[in-house]
Amino acid sequence: MSNSAPVGVFDSGIGGLTVAQEVIRQLPHESVIYFGDTARVPYGPKSPDTVRRYSREIASFLNEQGVKSIVIACNTATAHALTALRQEMDMPIIGVVEPGARAAVAASKRGHIGVIGTAGTIKSGAYERAIRALEPDIMITVRACPLLVPLVEEGWTEHEATRLVAKEYLQPMIDAEIDTLVLGCTHYPLLKALIADVLGPDVRLIDSAEETAAETARTLATANLAAESDADPTYRFIASDDPLQFLQLGQRFLGGTMEGVEIRTLG
Amino acid sequence: MSNSAPVGVFDSGIGGLTVAQEVIRQLPHESVIYFGDTARVPYGPKSPDTVRRYSREIASFLNEQGVKSIVIACNTATAHALTALRQEMDMPIIGVVEPGARAAVAASKRGHIGVIGTAGTIKSGAYERAIRALEPDIMITVRACPLLVPLVEEGWTEHEATRLVAKEYLQPMIDAEIDTLVLGCTHYPLLKALIADVLGPDVRLIDSAEETAAETARTLATANLAAESDADPTYRFIASDDPLQFLQLGQRFLGGTMEGVEIRTLG
Repeated sequence: MSNSAPVGVFDSGIGGLTVAQEVIRQLPHESVIYFGDTARVPYGPKSPDTVRRYSREIASFLNEQGVKSIVIACNTATAHALTALRQEMDMPIIGVVEPGARAAVAASKRGHIGVIGTAGTIKSGAYERAIRALEPDIMITVRACPLLVPLVEEGWTEHEATRLVAKEYLQPMIDAEIDTLVLGCTHYPLLKALIADVLGPDVRLIDSAEETAAETARTLATANLAAESDADPTYRFIASDDPLQFLQLGQRFLGGTMEGVEIRTLG
Repeated sequence: MSNSAPVGVFDSGIGGLTVAQEVIRQLPHESVIYFGDTARVPYGPKSPDTVRRYSREIASFLNEQGVKSIVIACNTATAHALTALRQEMDMPIIGVVEPGARAAVAASKRGHIGVIGTAGTIKSGAYERAIRALEPDIMITVRACPLLVPLVEEGWTEHEATRLVAKEYLQPMIDAEIDTLVLGCTHYPLLKALIADVLGPDVRLIDSAEETAAETARTLATANLAAESDADPTYRFIASDDPLQFLQLGQRFLGGTMEGVEIRTLG
């Protein structure tokens, strides 16, 4: 495995770009290949078996592209496929759940963490397991929020309807007096301002993108796989459906750094 | 082709059950095989090429199961794949767009029809073409409503947030004084009461399920493919993802008649 090989980052669609952006920012010498499975998005409502099958297909495709490590930049895919990919792939695999859990435990002041995510992520119990592995006695309140992803994709990040939906989902968290909320889906950072407004100033919001990028840096260093500090990175973005749509929606997540998108059908 | 062969009905997921239900009600002697592509749902935001590829895979699977005719019980799949499937398959193919357009033209009193649907259906222009083929001078106002499907799947058919979303989408239709609205997505009939309330009593709502079932009856009769009047029908429901979830969500659409769901992976 060469140090100059790219890092593979994948997601069910465009949400994982929030993680890719942090990887690019924190590891400026690493090349990145991003794969968004836009032909089969979303993963959130789908079964563990199906999400695992899709994740394996993508990991195997990224392996063919010569990546040295894979970041699963999707909470649902991490919840259902991290263990399997770690067993099956011969390279470091980084998920978003453990870094998010670690950041939440570090941030929590009164020991009550809330977690929101897709139906699949919440049902899997992955965050509860990861948080309790660090801090067995902490209180955890979880809630699946299936409507937040479509609202972000519609661009209604400040719409009154979105506020109403967020209030409905978050009221039990407010009532339960959580002190920290894990944004357990890579789409949610785009709703950070609105969620902060609904929850009030006393609740810390945890967006796992930053922590995941830091974890990627540590993992590559430990495995002696980090790029040389004079390396000139390249970025490739690949989607399984219409590249143009990915490019347009992707700008909302990544800002301006995406020059082109390739298409690749899987399955 | 045998008259006792089943009719194939397919959709991206569970929405097409509103059509299957009408087929079963209006054609009580016809056997039905329903396929819901729950592993790749939704089709609405996806590209024409991808939706066509998925539709071909499903049609070919239904053909292997021995169906005598196929009903595309999904507006997006009809918009992108009806023409291709009619060319490629050696059996009658019925879509939901033409029947809906016909019902709308018949119902419209002042000649101004509104159409709501997924991004894919609206972008395709399929309803405009079908309506103008019947009545070239009619006024048509269209609008993509991507959030309505997730709201129905969340079960929020009477929620205040859904009302707010529907108002935002439909206000231009109200301002434009449409007299008829085509519910151009098989999920929308579950929002009929709320949409009627938002639009007021003067706007006729067109749900293409009834018309599509009637069209299926005419097509089978014309092709000499109708089941014998003493035939004992059988019903099979197949999903590409978790059958249990399909069964649970399916009850909301079909009432109680679904006994079991099989699973079949495509692609």
